[in-house]
Amino acid sequence: MARLGRLRSSFSALRADALLVSHLPNIRYLCGFSGSTGLLLVEGSTATLFTDSRYTFQAKEEVSVARIHIAKHGLLRAVGERLRSLRGRARVGYSATSVTVAQKTALDAAVGGRVRWVGDGSVVEKLRSVKDSQELARMREAADVISQVFRRTLDSIRPGVSELALASRIESGIKQLGGEGQSFETIVASGPRSAWAHGRPTSKLLRKRELVVLDQGAILRGYCSDMTRTVFLGRATDRVRGLYGAVLEAQQAAKAAIRPGVAAGEVDRAARQVLKRAHLDRYFTHSTGHGLGLEVHEMPRIGRSEATILQEGMVLTVEPGVYIEGLGGIRIEDDVVVTAKGAVDLTTAPREFLEL
Amino acid sequence: MARLGRLRSSFSALRADALLVSHLPNIRYLCGFSGSTGLLLVEGSTATLFTDSRYTFQAKEEVSVARIHIAKHGLLRAVGERLRSLRGRARVGYSATSVTVAQKTALDAAVGGRVRWVGDGSVVEKLRSVKDSQELARMREAADVISQVFRRTLDSIRPGVSELALASRIESGIKQLGGEGQSFETIVASGPRSAWAHGRPTSKLLRKRELVVLDQGAILRGYCSDMTRTVFLGRATDRVRGLYGAVLEAQQAAKAAIRPGVAAGEVDRAARQVLKRAHLDRYFTHSTGHGLGLEVHEMPRIGRSEATILQEGMVLTVEPGVYIEGLGGIRIEDDVVVTAKGAVDLTTAPREFLEL
Repeated sequence: MARLGRLRSSFSALRADALLVSHLPNIRYLCGFSGSTGLLLVEGSTATLFTDSRYTFQAKEEVSVARIHIAKHGLLRAVGERLRSLRGRARVGYSATSVTVAQKTALDAAVGGRVRWVGDGSVVEKLRSVKDSQELARMREAADVISQVFRRTLDSIRPGVSELALASRIESGIKQLGGEGQSFETIVASGPRSAWAHGRPTSKLLRKRELVVLDQGAILRGYCSDMTRTVFLGRATDRVRGLYGAVLEAQQAAKAAIRPGVAAGEVDRAARQVLKRAHLDRYFTHSTGHGLGLEVHEMPRIGRSEATILQEGMVLTVEPGVYIEGLGGIRIEDDVVVTAKGAVDLTTAPREFLEL
Repeated sequence: MARLGRLRSSFSALRADALLVSHLPNIRYLCGFSGSTGLLLVEGSTATLFTDSRYTFQAKEEVSVARIHIAKHGLLRAVGERLRSLRGRARVGYSATSVTVAQKTALDAAVGGRVRWVGDGSVVEKLRSVKDSQELARMREAADVISQVFRRTLDSIRPGVSELALASRIESGIKQLGGEGQSFETIVASGPRSAWAHGRPTSKLLRKRELVVLDQGAILRGYCSDMTRTVFLGRATDRVRGLYGAVLEAQQAAKAAIRPGVAAGEVDRAARQVLKRAHLDRYFTHSTGHGLGLEVHEMPRIGRSEATILQEGMVLTVEPGVYIEGLGGIRIEDDVVVTAKGAVDLTTAPREFLEL
């Protein structure tokens, strides 16, 4: 499979004989397995998926590019036995960011000193950050679904409806349009609660003259979308309208900064500068965006001093926001793909200020 | 707060001066914070929640038993600075099962050798395994919600409906009844797919003469329920009816084995023996159950050789199942609380064999 091949070509940079893949989205990306328990050992010419007996049938159906090993006495032990059987003292790459200290201790015991562990340098995450055409097609679908869901939800955003009821409407809309589920817990936060950048929906009812932040995403054939819109119930004050305009302008500036060859940090700075000119930068308390794919947060991060160079085929969120205690929050978020000509929007729901 | 007090009384057994809590459900349990980024440092007479600026308002609203520290340059660095300021070389407990190797490396760098790390022996998880009365009330509600949702869904389980549509119905039912969301991705697996113990719902339509496994859970005020029912579409063969009877009998045997003072392994063996007598034990490919609470899987595990002694106030799932390739799977799962008189069911949806 092409992805395993691309991964193997990074073995030499790691000076590794094999790579132990433990992060589940990485496993799914490389071999198709979508179960909740697995380890993938990629060697020079073979790959083996270790999982447990709950996944016997599913692994057979999903995985063709790797052998399947159903571990009877724990995955780490089975992997250890395999690694001990390699010739000499193999150098094996592993992910220090997904293996816990306890798992590493168990792995060390299982291999009995026969392995030299090396950091994997996030090689799989880096491969995943540039999407192939099959992935882009799925991400376009996931973005389409969430854009449609939002349009259909607009009628329901009115005083007297609870945040939870709106979240439920969004989530059932995703399923109706063929999504497997939501890519994260839907955020619906109204009034002062909208200043919580990550407010869970509650039984609070929407009221007139409130901001409402809706942050939602669909999963389609494994791939995530992630889109935020902020609306106002009734006629907004000039202050609120001004804030919205500044956030939208910051988003446009960030999108305009996106092109292959640019550092991620430049995109963040483009958004931050607009808000700084409006004296709002201190209310912009998070980074401008993040990569998106099989996971809702993946490489690259679009933060202040991020050096990662953008490449064609990366998919990013662009989501500046301001959060003012007492007044509320405003965030506008789209998913874009990096093309030779710059950022192209995948999410398409209306971005203009909506007073409902 | 009582929970922090109970935790501190375990410091002496750990011979620790402080405990760094990193697992988010543990943090929520101890101080109420429900955000997605946080570290809680519990010392002899103070506790400090470290989080980032996205959670400034939320932390203020949720947390009263700990000081709040909004970290500007990363949580690990802020915690490291605090630990370096302790007198002498402090012994600090941490969780090797939730801290990754990379986080541990960063922590080590941040404390600059001024700390002796000791394993925390899962002290918080152990505290959490025995529920207090507030927790039991919430878990009863979460179990009620999922039982009601299943009853309301029964009418929709019929040929021609897709697995995804059924899952969506279940999930919106949870929200309608006031749940914050589902405690895991709802499983609806029909026909041969029901033999996948953890089958994600697909666009496959339900057909006559198929088994349908529905595994679903609600979250209510943070607490999870988890319930599985298996139904048949049309009239089942004697074989299928016999299999269902055996699984139900196994579940009853496991429930009957539950009482304070019994080892968890005995409960597992009670279920397994029934299936063994019916020559079905090789199709029972997972353990009999698990603890349930703020997480859908927590202590204790109800597995074959589990030595944990059951205590009054523990909440467990009891979920034997058989999975036969080609034919399908049958699982029956309830949530029970351990009382002085034995297991008391929290989930109440019908358990008899339903031919719809």
